[in-house]
Amino acid sequence: MQLSFELDTSAKASLQTQLVGEITTSITSGRLTPGTRLPGTRSLSQQLGVSRNTVLLAFSALEAEGFIESREGAGTFVSAYWPEPAPFQETGPATPPVPSRPATAEPEVTCDFQLEAVDPDLFPTATWRRLMMRRMQSPDFNLSRTGDPRGAPDLRKAICRFLGASRSMKIDPEQVLIVSSIQQATNVVGQMFVSPGSPVVVERPGCSLIAPIYARAGAEILPVPTDHDGLRVDLLPQRRNALVAVTPERQFPMGASLSTTRRKALLDWAEHTDAHVFEVDFDSEFRYEGSPKPALQSLDRHGRFIYSAAFALTIGPGLRIGFLVLPPRLVAPAMHALRLLDHAYPCQTQGAPWLDQAVLCDFLESGGYEKHLRRLRKTYMARRNALMDALTRWFGPCDLGGTASGTHLVWRLPAHLPDAGTCQALAGSVGIRVNTMMLETVTGPEYLPDWNRYLLLGYADLPEDKITAAVARLAGALLPGRD
Amino acid sequence: MQLSFELDTSAKASLQTQLVGEITTSITSGRLTPGTRLPGTRSLSQQLGVSRNTVLLAFSALEAEGFIESREGAGTFVSAYWPEPAPFQETGPATPPVPSRPATAEPEVTCDFQLEAVDPDLFPTATWRRLMMRRMQSPDFNLSRTGDPRGAPDLRKAICRFLGASRSMKIDPEQVLIVSSIQQATNVVGQMFVSPGSPVVVERPGCSLIAPIYARAGAEILPVPTDHDGLRVDLLPQRRNALVAVTPERQFPMGASLSTTRRKALLDWAEHTDAHVFEVDFDSEFRYEGSPKPALQSLDRHGRFIYSAAFALTIGPGLRIGFLVLPPRLVAPAMHALRLLDHAYPCQTQGAPWLDQAVLCDFLESGGYEKHLRRLRKTYMARRNALMDALTRWFGPCDLGGTASGTHLVWRLPAHLPDAGTCQALAGSVGIRVNTMMLETVTGPEYLPDWNRYLLLGYADLPEDKITAAVARLAGALLPGRD
Repeated sequence: MQLSFELDTSAKASLQTQLVGEITTSITSGRLTPGTRLPGTRSLSQQLGVSRNTVLLAFSALEAEGFIESREGAGTFVSAYWPEPAPFQETGPATPPVPSRPATAEPEVTCDFQLEAVDPDLFPTATWRRLMMRRMQSPDFNLSRTGDPRGAPDLRKAICRFLGASRSMKIDPEQVLIVSSIQQATNVVGQMFVSPGSPVVVERPGCSLIAPIYARAGAEILPVPTDHDGLRVDLLPQRRNALVAVTPERQFPMGASLSTTRRKALLDWAEHTDAHVFEVDFDSEFRYEGSPKPALQSLDRHGRFIYSAAFALTIGPGLRIGFLVLPPRLVAPAMHALRLLDHAYPCQTQGAPWLDQAVLCDFLESGGYEKHLRRLRKTYMARRNALMDALTRWFGPCDLGGTASGTHLVWRLPAHLPDAGTCQALAGSVGIRVNTMMLETVTGPEYLPDWNRYLLLGYADLPEDKITAAVARLAGALLPGRD
Repeated sequence: MQLSFELDTSAKASLQTQLVGEITTSITSGRLTPGTRLPGTRSLSQQLGVSRNTVLLAFSALEAEGFIESREGAGTFVSAYWPEPAPFQETGPATPPVPSRPATAEPEVTCDFQLEAVDPDLFPTATWRRLMMRRMQSPDFNLSRTGDPRGAPDLRKAICRFLGASRSMKIDPEQVLIVSSIQQATNVVGQMFVSPGSPVVVERPGCSLIAPIYARAGAEILPVPTDHDGLRVDLLPQRRNALVAVTPERQFPMGASLSTTRRKALLDWAEHTDAHVFEVDFDSEFRYEGSPKPALQSLDRHGRFIYSAAFALTIGPGLRIGFLVLPPRLVAPAMHALRLLDHAYPCQTQGAPWLDQAVLCDFLESGGYEKHLRRLRKTYMARRNALMDALTRWFGPCDLGGTASGTHLVWRLPAHLPDAGTCQALAGSVGIRVNTMMLETVTGPEYLPDWNRYLLLGYADLPEDKITAAVARLAGALLPGRD
């Protein structure tokens, strides 16, 4: 096949950028359909009259974004499942099935150790209903009213108080901007800091939904590995004006907390290189051992740190409220960015619905949120304990990571068990769903040399007895002659 | 001063793109503060070792985005009020004050003819409260539940029925994607279609919040003028694979409806050039004369049209719900784009809160929305009539545009009145706020040769008697010897 576009040698964008853009747009607009084989780099370079290196670099960028995939000896294809890149499906040893697409012959899943779950049974229905009713009975109840575009002032105050107590952050409500989600916050930060060529550091393995936003805006993505102490700060590039997206309190997906030494080193590095740090706080609320460390933002001396968190994991995804904490000089640019992303045209309003903001504020101020968090923490800890106990009972002493906090743990498989992909398939055969590092929300498993030796087990919405029974069944499937 | 960055001649991004990026990021991150004078193009080209033309082109792009402004004979400066570009403040004749920053000596505003207003007195509080209560009493009420990432199926069905009746659109609920706002929909479309160098056509004058999104993603913005029949379709560029953002039912801000001839021509042009059309439907619900034309999308033969609307103007900005209607092949890419913009990490949920979606669905299905729209239409028409009558009474036959629909009209000032900027200042001196074309939501007033002869008057939240009294006072201020 021949691709039906031409490059403009007189255009301001480089040929490679043009090529990446043309192919991306052809794919996202459906002109190039999944599975389509792309022309070879040599013939494409001849067709377009550009160097083969330009084509190779463009293909490499497209592959990094998950739009295309090269199959050894077969050529390059539009990804079958974009937007869910699964870079290890083709090249990894013993390719396991992609978790979200189990073979049709599998038995029904009776226990799903999914990550990122919320247990509906723990939602404080009565309290929330009461608080909502009160706000709705008020004469102020009127969706035609506009709100403060930064978010309800009372909610911003309540968030400051909460962050002061729980994250040691000394901030002013004027520094808080209400958004709908951490994902929206990530876009706001991108609008502010990323332009073509901007260096952006991301954790690897890490969340798959951060880099694509910045890559799309032309960022140069600089992956930095993580280990049991979090981001390898010693491997940060010596580049000026970078943006660093980091999950210090609980690294996603490995669950490590960034060590104090590294926090200090990160701060020094940021000041030395004029970098900005975007601190993403996924689930610091659930800590079972020790205390959460103060937020990185609390160390900020020169307005280089931006903090974001949300309520989707603690209250539920039915509440679309998150927030950014910004250095004062960045509040106006962030509001501008948010406006371009999601204001209500034509009214000067943006962010989360004000009724939800008001109810959340009441929930925080009444102490209801703290009480709710204590209940979640206690329940989740019991579930974590049940999972750890059951694993140890059946498999002996286990190498478990990320157990001190969060809602999933990372099990490094012992040598006597097969690799993660095989374990996943065997678990599936007895109706149990477990996750390997090949989750669609994870990018960069290859930064772990033994990436196919890890199972990720979420326990947030699984009662203890279910966990105990499931691990016993799992043992039957994984340990030969044991059933 | 010297700018503290260097360009990388070996980078894949062009030098001009790098320069635009560096300066944009320096401004948005606060390293370059408002009012800072930039180095001259000649000295900057020497410092960076690039051609002066590269610097000139970069500056021109930055000025188009409103980041910098050149002052005749004084040099180029970081815009004082970015993010609110006011390109005519410096060069226009008789510079009027920017509406949002009235002189402090002004009397209190007693009547504000603001655009894009919603009257809180018209919100159906009792009905909405009743519908919400019902949903909240249900045993399903639980914010920990996740929803369909495309939006509640019942709401998507209800929207299809509504669009079928009101906009002649024959669509399937599978083609509908719930978002939070038209602005978010505009970003979704950008993620799908815009990469560096993509041609994007926008209306001029037009909404100031569309082009910056696409420009930021590297689009080549192609402004096309509008007139009393809407977009000048005859001036569309002969470029392939363009994206055209158009407001056919009521052009913003001039209020024209795209003529039937031009609709057909637009369709032909789109098929001929392989373009996609993004139809933004700001306020087709309020039509006082004739019927709204069928949506452009209803003419779509080959899946080239994308439609978006929202409920912020009809129900209120407290409800953050809008939607996209997409050709079937574009639904998956749009969901991917929305996910990157605003999903709830870590749950697989995005879009508007599901409780609001459920209540809106009930409101649509119960006939409440139709009834509400009839009430708004009747009230707004009475207000429009009062405004037209009062203007005619005091100023004689008036040249009024955009009167057939919407919630504001466009008054082309008669020759015996001073220019719009002066009229605005005189109105302000008697406590009345009127808008010129220099609104921050409007870009490209210069496409009207007599841009300083128009006043834009919104009437949605002004009762008739207030309008009548205000126009009388306005006449006192504008007509000498008449007070």
